Amino acid sequence: MPRLIALYNAPDDTDAFDAHYRDVHTPIVARYPNLRDVRLTKPEGVAGRAPAFHLMAEMIFDTEADLDAALVSEAGAESARDLRNFAGAGVTMFIAPDEADA
Amino acid sequence: MPRLIALYNAPDDTDAFDAHYRDVHTPIVARYPNLRDVRLTKPEGVAGRAPAFHLMAEMIFDTEADLDAALVSEAGAESARDLRNFAGAGVTMFIAPDEADA
Repeated sequence: MPRLIALYNAPDDTDAFDAHYRDVHTPIVARYPNLRDVRLTKPEGVAGRAPAFHLMAEMIFDTEADLDAALVSEAGAESARDLRNFAGAGVTMFIAPDEADA
Repeated sequence: MPRLIALYNAPDDTDAFDAHYRDVHTPIVARYPNLRDVRLTKPEGVAGRAPAFHLMAEMIFDTEADLDAALVSEAGAESARDLRNFAGAGVTMFIAPDEADA
């Protein structure tokens, strides 16, 4: 199933980031229309190195049309605006469509 | 289930990258001990922007112990060495453990 993936860089204040993500951002994301599931992961580094990202959020939809509609929904716009409130360290977003044939 | 995730930057020669990944790198990864599944995704950008990565590879294991063992296996070492043959544009790797409680 297609996923909208957000990779958040390590914030200056981890506790403040996590609290904002949980208490403010997650409720906005939960309002995405036709959102099927959200998977949150705290990346770990390979071979003892620090991970490049603090948090990976995977927003899962049944279809790419649902994903595209969520991005332009009112909740999609609000979640994009909310990034400035906690993601100042940077965030990389992309769409992972269904599995490639590669 | 825990995943080893590799995010490959856009290569100069996409066709050469894809051919090397398919014909050389994938057979090495397939030899990881206790590898459960591999998911390959070609990222797409959000809102018409170019995606930050050309390829996302997710190597899925039953347990973190299996993942750790694969990293230090002969195939794990060979796959790391093979990166220089096709991933000169850069690759970001991290471990996604089981879902966070956040």
